[in-house]
Amino acid sequence: MSDIAPDRFIDNVFAYQKTAAVKAAIEIDLFSAIGADADTVEMLAAKVNASPRGVRILCDYLTVQELLIKDGKRYRLTPSSSVFLDKRSPACMGSVIDFLAAPELMQLFLENPAAYVRNGGSVGLANLAPDHPIWVKFARAMVPFMAPVAQGIATEVARWPSPPRKVLDVAAGHGVFGIAIGKAVPGARIVGLDWRPVLEVALENARLAGLEKRYDTIAGSAFDVEWSTGYDLVLIPNFLHHFDREGCVGLLERARRALVPGGAALVVEMVPNDDRVSPPFPAAFAFVMLATTPKGDAWTAQELQEMGRAAGFVDSMLRPLPPSPQTMIVFR
Amino acid sequence: MSDIAPDRFIDNVFAYQKTAAVKAAIEIDLFSAIGADADTVEMLAAKVNASPRGVRILCDYLTVQELLIKDGKRYRLTPSSSVFLDKRSPACMGSVIDFLAAPELMQLFLENPAAYVRNGGSVGLANLAPDHPIWVKFARAMVPFMAPVAQGIATEVARWPSPPRKVLDVAAGHGVFGIAIGKAVPGARIVGLDWRPVLEVALENARLAGLEKRYDTIAGSAFDVEWSTGYDLVLIPNFLHHFDREGCVGLLERARRALVPGGAALVVEMVPNDDRVSPPFPAAFAFVMLATTPKGDAWTAQELQEMGRAAGFVDSMLRPLPPSPQTMIVFR
Repeated sequence: MSDIAPDRFIDNVFAYQKTAAVKAAIEIDLFSAIGADADTVEMLAAKVNASPRGVRILCDYLTVQELLIKDGKRYRLTPSSSVFLDKRSPACMGSVIDFLAAPELMQLFLENPAAYVRNGGSVGLANLAPDHPIWVKFARAMVPFMAPVAQGIATEVARWPSPPRKVLDVAAGHGVFGIAIGKAVPGARIVGLDWRPVLEVALENARLAGLEKRYDTIAGSAFDVEWSTGYDLVLIPNFLHHFDREGCVGLLERARRALVPGGAALVVEMVPNDDRVSPPFPAAFAFVMLATTPKGDAWTAQELQEMGRAAGFVDSMLRPLPPSPQTMIVFR
Repeated sequence: MSDIAPDRFIDNVFAYQKTAAVKAAIEIDLFSAIGADADTVEMLAAKVNASPRGVRILCDYLTVQELLIKDGKRYRLTPSSSVFLDKRSPACMGSVIDFLAAPELMQLFLENPAAYVRNGGSVGLANLAPDHPIWVKFARAMVPFMAPVAQGIATEVARWPSPPRKVLDVAAGHGVFGIAIGKAVPGARIVGLDWRPVLEVALENARLAGLEKRYDTIAGSAFDVEWSTGYDLVLIPNFLHHFDREGCVGLLERARRALVPGGAALVVEMVPNDDRVSPPFPAAFAFVMLATTPKGDAWTAQELQEMGRAAGFVDSMLRPLPPSPQTMIVFR
């Protein structure tokens, strides 16, 4: 590639084809088939019940994208694909395509991208009813993506001098943030707050974790329903980015009022640096919010800390959660 | 990024968002506005008539994708964006999004990617009538992408010991391959063959090049219409990849029969190495053919040479055309 070249532009123009390829591969469970030692086009085609031509071209494409390795005529998984894309791996996160590359979501981005740039946002999915199946799809699909982040937070929270006894998980969704804390802090009661259909997913995950006797729910919108009080910890995981500053401050105020003295609000977010163009993933995430919400954003640390002060918190502590692209912020 | 990480997978899942961003930027002519010295969010928003929030998030996203540079609060073009994305640049190729990211094309890839992998191809755009507007859109959009390739070929052809006097451009489309030769070889007559509505674009480009008196046309499908004879050169630019081996051999045979003794067929193609996973662009191009044609492919040099022999040619010469991802193959 010469210094002056259209390659990067063309790569961006064609980028939707990468989504298509990885979606096809997960839907036909190609990665698991390769992980199970089918390694030639013919073996793979038989195993995933697809045409040899389709399998050959898809495998070559995924090799170009460095999701597979090709040796002569044989394909194998990269170390990362083996961990994250083979269904037999406990860390497999292939299911995230069900939400992150859902037709409803892709349409929001691709149908008229100039429109949300001109308008500075979009109605997004907010015009969908609480019982729209995409919310349940989201809750189920994102578990493998969020479980390691939730685990990291739970380990940290369990080490606090006084671990929380009563925890509210706001916009719980799949419920994995609250559930991870429930597992890490013996006896802690967890309350999941979300729309009724989505809470079914959280309850199902709580039962799978053996927490059903310590898991309660509050059904409704986090903006409208009563949160109750007496919480040692209020979790607000990956929720603030959907709203403008006012919306965020409002939620943080509700959290503060729901806490016992000495309690904490724990926010999980994509937090870009002040330059808003690094690190790549949190910085790029602002574009997701432009295309899919009216006023959401990837908030910087400074902005989040200012929101916490405006909501009446006196202290905040930020901690990145590598290797995930997420950051936790604890307000007291 | 650690060695074992889901980053590459997630980047592929989210890739459609890159297409959306670059499409928005070109549609609102953001790159030209930055090139014309609007460099803050406020100035840009006023100039492109978009919301500051939309412009800020889009510019940050394009900076993450290395299509822009951000210094403090000011944005500027990268050297490559300046050459290829600012409309005032003669090499600007922003218009390629009109075809390469056209809704009709993206839908072919994204609607049901597992289906074309399972089936080993798709009906693609072939079910569209010859007068469907996408063909004219294609012909117009691809000119800036193909013009430099055509220029390289024309320069080479003009240096041949006996430059061609009569040239057939098969599936001429925009016509730039034939037109470039017409300009480089004084007196050469060019015949563009394509569907009638598309030939209007070729004729328009021929007029712009001052070649209208030396430019003739044959309207119809390259598979059905008579090509006539007596050509010194038959061009088959970016056409063979749409067909299977039989289709390609058939076209090459028609070319051979249309040539005068000593004449040449000149094919332009995306030619991957024998491993079919390098170089990245030609290798990945096979996936475009999987999603959009019944049996097309990115043919290797060996395969193309074998097709040439099967069509009755005795000699073939390959030459890559850097910096483009294309290769020319001359059959005699």
